[in-house]
Amino acid sequence: MVPEQDVLIISTIWSQLAQRAKQDNSLHLADLFASDDGRFDRFSLEGAGLLADFSKQRITDESRELLVKLADERQLRHWLDALFSGAEVNCTEGRSAKHWCLREPVDKAPLVHEQLDAMEGMVNRILERHWRGVQGDAITDVVNVGVGGSDLGPLMAAFALQSSELPDGQARPRLHFASSMDGSQVSQVLQELNPRTTLFLVSSKSFTTVDTLHNANTARQWLARGLGLDYDDASLLRCHFIGISANAERMAEWGIVPTNQLLFWDWVGGRYSLWSAIGMPIALTVGMAGFREMLAGAHEMDRHCRTQPWKENMPVMLALVDVWNINFLDIRARAVLPYDGRLKHLPAYLEQLEMESNGKSVSRTGEPVEYDTCPVIWGEVGPNAQHAFFQLLHQGTQVIACEFLMTARRYTEAVHSASVAELEGQHALSNANCLAQSRLLALGERALDPSLALPAYKRYHGNQPSTTLVLDELSPRVLGALLAMYEHKVFVQAVIWGINPFDQWGVEMGKVIATDMLGVLADPEAAYGLDASSLALARYVAEKQK
Amino acid sequence: MVPEQDVLIISTIWSQLAQRAKQDNSLHLADLFASDDGRFDRFSLEGAGLLADFSKQRITDESRELLVKLADERQLRHWLDALFSGAEVNCTEGRSAKHWCLREPVDKAPLVHEQLDAMEGMVNRILERHWRGVQGDAITDVVNVGVGGSDLGPLMAAFALQSSELPDGQARPRLHFASSMDGSQVSQVLQELNPRTTLFLVSSKSFTTVDTLHNANTARQWLARGLGLDYDDASLLRCHFIGISANAERMAEWGIVPTNQLLFWDWVGGRYSLWSAIGMPIALTVGMAGFREMLAGAHEMDRHCRTQPWKENMPVMLALVDVWNINFLDIRARAVLPYDGRLKHLPAYLEQLEMESNGKSVSRTGEPVEYDTCPVIWGEVGPNAQHAFFQLLHQGTQVIACEFLMTARRYTEAVHSASVAELEGQHALSNANCLAQSRLLALGERALDPSLALPAYKRYHGNQPSTTLVLDELSPRVLGALLAMYEHKVFVQAVIWGINPFDQWGVEMGKVIATDMLGVLADPEAAYGLDASSLALARYVAEKQK
Repeated sequence: MVPEQDVLIISTIWSQLAQRAKQDNSLHLADLFASDDGRFDRFSLEGAGLLADFSKQRITDESRELLVKLADERQLRHWLDALFSGAEVNCTEGRSAKHWCLREPVDKAPLVHEQLDAMEGMVNRILERHWRGVQGDAITDVVNVGVGGSDLGPLMAAFALQSSELPDGQARPRLHFASSMDGSQVSQVLQELNPRTTLFLVSSKSFTTVDTLHNANTARQWLARGLGLDYDDASLLRCHFIGISANAERMAEWGIVPTNQLLFWDWVGGRYSLWSAIGMPIALTVGMAGFREMLAGAHEMDRHCRTQPWKENMPVMLALVDVWNINFLDIRARAVLPYDGRLKHLPAYLEQLEMESNGKSVSRTGEPVEYDTCPVIWGEVGPNAQHAFFQLLHQGTQVIACEFLMTARRYTEAVHSASVAELEGQHALSNANCLAQSRLLALGERALDPSLALPAYKRYHGNQPSTTLVLDELSPRVLGALLAMYEHKVFVQAVIWGINPFDQWGVEMGKVIATDMLGVLADPEAAYGLDASSLALARYVAEKQK
Repeated sequence: MVPEQDVLIISTIWSQLAQRAKQDNSLHLADLFASDDGRFDRFSLEGAGLLADFSKQRITDESRELLVKLADERQLRHWLDALFSGAEVNCTEGRSAKHWCLREPVDKAPLVHEQLDAMEGMVNRILERHWRGVQGDAITDVVNVGVGGSDLGPLMAAFALQSSELPDGQARPRLHFASSMDGSQVSQVLQELNPRTTLFLVSSKSFTTVDTLHNANTARQWLARGLGLDYDDASLLRCHFIGISANAERMAEWGIVPTNQLLFWDWVGGRYSLWSAIGMPIALTVGMAGFREMLAGAHEMDRHCRTQPWKENMPVMLALVDVWNINFLDIRARAVLPYDGRLKHLPAYLEQLEMESNGKSVSRTGEPVEYDTCPVIWGEVGPNAQHAFFQLLHQGTQVIACEFLMTARRYTEAVHSASVAELEGQHALSNANCLAQSRLLALGERALDPSLALPAYKRYHGNQPSTTLVLDELSPRVLGALLAMYEHKVFVQAVIWGINPFDQWGVEMGKVIATDMLGVLADPEAAYGLDASSLALARYVAEKQK
């Protein structure tokens, strides 16, 4: 059992940090760089195919020293040991959080590998075109039906790894994702695909998620109609549906045949589940060897996080710098800016990982916290964001922390054939823009000829803090390390804040009210006890539908 | 000429608003609704196929009265007249901002309609499969090459209107969008499409945008190689490239043949340009009649904005409520949450429209402003966001304003055939969730049985303000009205803040530095005058590429 811990003590270290922030308020990143040649060397870390550069954050040796002490005071070592020993770190649900166990070697986690092997069988059958629809056609299109953790992780990673090569004899099916409850994606699938050659993966930890079951039912009706079969036809279910869940019973009830069931466990949070069979779309993109490589990269980061001292520890330093920005510099938003378009879905993935984990205001012991926790996180492919919201980053009224991501190696002749030269030119241009933007945000107009006399509207104050992450390449292995780094970063922050990052009680009540509202929409005149706005909106919608 | 105006006077009204906000701080939306049955009627507006419900915002009759007075004090009438008379409201660039003119009838704007007619000719040839590739094949795939305003608007609207019907004899080509400078999208196009049947639209106001020209060049090389033609071959250019720009000369220089050039004008800002030929992908989705309907809807909103008193004026009230939230309630972020998945790209579109327009900190007269301007704007399809970041909205530590969007009518048998019943069920479910979430955010746990004794981690404080926008249906006409409403809202806010929303000087300097950085990446050892971080990052990347 993990001992309970106090709400954040207004500790000596906390007040020293506040004091330090007040003092440092007049520091400008341009001065920090001008006065210190060694800044990059002291504030950057390497490991697991990644470089993390914190030197453009508004930290100094002194503030880092205090942050590291804060980590000790908040018993970070104890909590990491608790996490990695499988203790019940998720106190409100009485559960451990063992997503790290999904990347352990076979001798440490035999059950995990049993499911991986079962998944491998299915993945290979699909990639080798041996998986057949009910009329004998090879499957060409796979639709992932899931939402939240059963959508964002697989979507993000499969998209990121799309330029990987598959072994000879394997061919990638077209992948589609249907997550949105309103049917907008599944309706497109129905219009564009052929029921004879389409396979659905139905992914839901509980297998009770309303969004997912509705999409799956709509798909099943469409298949049955299109193939001239009964809704309950056994061969329809055997040939066109795979289920992925922690609840075998519910899967079976819905109709997933036993041989098409892949399992994961209660101790895997939805937003941490891409390492389990939930990651099947990733395996369908990179093959099973690639998927295992991704797990190996994450495992390498697990080891890094467990063994490195705080100052040398990438997830810990990411977390501490963020705490500094949020709690001491009053920064309330962070922009995630990948300069490799394959990481397009990373911002949405991190929005869930961070905001659902740490968007909390009650401590582990049930007291309201008296400091900010998770900020708003959003983002966009960096070069596109330059044409969208960089104006606000450079000349707006808020301080915003940025996170730049870039890849060192990218296009290859094997995949991009004759166009590789032009594409490599584009890659260099994109990286140059990444470096230019972090430099300009940090230094402001001092990044250019300082003798220029600029009108007010052309001036750049600078001093906007950023971290730059360089991936040696966007391989399954490095991506695995990157994502595990973010997972641990989120946990470290939760430890500092004294909150539980593994529950999500803030999404429960909406589900109950939505059920009531469905009734209200069907018959607004029978509703009672509603606020005037909700009732009038329901009436308006009903009226317009007549 | 528009007279210059003072930086925001710390006026009586401004301080009355601040005073009022302090007083209102203890008000809870649950109490406001409990004590006032007429709240919805007084705080909601209808028009142009839209309903805007502000009653779940933390405003009262008193604060609204003051906000309306503030609009007068800031000379809103004068500024709207200036905008709509074509005065030089963009003072730093000496330009008018006449995007509204793009939706004027033919007698008011003959040049605009000349270009619309030229576009119609091209659109019809493509939709009727008469536009041929260089080897005589009908065009099946159209790739929009553009970024920022030349990408986000067309992408968002074409995606939103995908379920529209086309006239008999017309068939939609597959649409693709290549915006990102790093080549990640164009490289996919090259892998998946056939050069014989692919047409590129190259869209750039200046026709000097580096991102766009690189993508266009990569595409042109690929076409030339794939079709066995010279890079400069005249028929290649005539059959596979259309150019859309305000700069005919540059288009011609690049190689766009005169008959394939579509023009717009200096007085159309990039982020306001989807109403011009930049909107061609929209016309390829809904046909020219549909495109003209979208313009008509926007024109209707223009009239609404010009003629309605502030209290009855949708864009004005949207702007004033936002000012209230930002400047008086210290809210620094707004979430845009469409409950119709076809509006998936609306958040990214609004991120540009609002943050690039009003992410400013210098007044029109060149003084630094002393109050917050544009907040962080981000969003996601609502039901998906429920599984991602709603936790933070319900139980985080920041107050965040939300904007809900829903559609009253949706799926039709004509388009969704046999699946219409299941899909309509999904639509109702999605709308029910929309209503449930805005209710819960407003009322907190008081939205449910108040006699429940909840542990701290299950409690919902509520009082998170939101606006709900209902679209009668997502037709070209209503979408046009919605987007024009947002455009005017942005302008009204700029007037209140005394800033120029039509320039974007904050994105200029990065372009200059990026050119330098390209040289640094090619040879880091020859660099000089760089900060230690940027230099070390360039070296790291160069080292990893060896």
